[in-house]
Amino acid sequence: MNDQKGILAVISGFSGAGKGTLVKELLTRHEQEYCLSISATTRIPREGEVDGQHYFFLDKSVFEQRIQEERFLEHACYVDNYYGTPKDFVFNKLSQGISVILEIEMQGALKVKERYPETVLIFVTPPTAEELEARLRGRGTETEEVILSRLSRASEEVTYMDKYDYIVLNENGKVVECAEDIHQIIEAEKRKAVYGGELVEQLTEGLAAYKKGE
Amino acid sequence: MNDQKGILAVISGFSGAGKGTLVKELLTRHEQEYCLSISATTRIPREGEVDGQHYFFLDKSVFEQRIQEERFLEHACYVDNYYGTPKDFVFNKLSQGISVILEIEMQGALKVKERYPETVLIFVTPPTAEELEARLRGRGTETEEVILSRLSRASEEVTYMDKYDYIVLNENGKVVECAEDIHQIIEAEKRKAVYGGELVEQLTEGLAAYKKGE
Repeated sequence: MNDQKGILAVISGFSGAGKGTLVKELLTRHEQEYCLSISATTRIPREGEVDGQHYFFLDKSVFEQRIQEERFLEHACYVDNYYGTPKDFVFNKLSQGISVILEIEMQGALKVKERYPETVLIFVTPPTAEELEARLRGRGTETEEVILSRLSRASEEVTYMDKYDYIVLNENGKVVECAEDIHQIIEAEKRKAVYGGELVEQLTEGLAAYKKGE
Repeated sequence: MNDQKGILAVISGFSGAGKGTLVKELLTRHEQEYCLSISATTRIPREGEVDGQHYFFLDKSVFEQRIQEERFLEHACYVDNYYGTPKDFVFNKLSQGISVILEIEMQGALKVKERYPETVLIFVTPPTAEELEARLRGRGTETEEVILSRLSRASEEVTYMDKYDYIVLNENGKVVECAEDIHQIIEAEKRKAVYGGELVEQLTEGLAAYKKGE
């Protein structure tokens, strides 16, 4: 069971919930065990963005061909650009025993879960709506309009929270604890009986000789 | 979410797998967080057994009355004596936020899971059949007949392993690690979205004011 496949985990959360910081903490603390999925996109690379590190930058025709070939776990189109999660990258890492973190929005998350029910959906949230608003305002970098539109979006996203497998509280100043909570969930998931097929088979074979009447 | 209910966990395993030692280790390491369920029985107390500590000793008529009143999570009859898991005790502890460990055999475990699907079924096993046999023989206290009958029983029980939620390896000399694996599973279970109802409700209320058009 210890040399088993990695776990595919989606981490979602309200904009402003501190998801990015949290994922970075998780990857730093357990860098041998996790990697972040790299998205493919058809948009133009921004200054400093490296192909294969920040994104896989693809031509539109190549992206569309790969959609045809079902080479994405999920994909979507925003503002005339495609974004998608390449299967190859994810499945390669998983087969090496590395768990893959997807940081995608809710609709993508639910699509991935539908196709790969073993995907673990984790929703990260501040403990209260007030706290979410305080964090958004605390940044001091957003206009009132942006803050209100994020809160409005959160008010819709909250209705999907129960579609997630786990809810993790991201309390103020507890980013380490929260990252460890996520790690704990993924470690527990690895022990799900559904992954124990090989072990059960070996035990069954090993015990067969002791079956009554044999 | 931190003052939530405890988790009801069943720990099963082959006779000789070291389950008892393991449960003791878990309860010692986290004594505020767990308690062991106390069974009720109609059998006569043995020397040194204390009512309400080792068992709840009940008259047969009382036990049968409580079966009628559905006051057991599960019950069974062995060698003319009843054994059962009293609901009151378990639900009291759970409501105090204490997780309850049931150490019952497979059929009882599956019955409890059927009635209370939120029950967490954990199967503890040595890594191989050879290791199980070595442990049974290593005790040096059992006759060959008893050892073979336990291995025969294990060969039947192995076919139910996939009904469990989790499989935990109990490797030689790693009782602490194994107890912590179980603790990790139960901590992860507490974050299941299914327990997040109250939190989601509060967030929904708190965010309602930001819904578009309101």
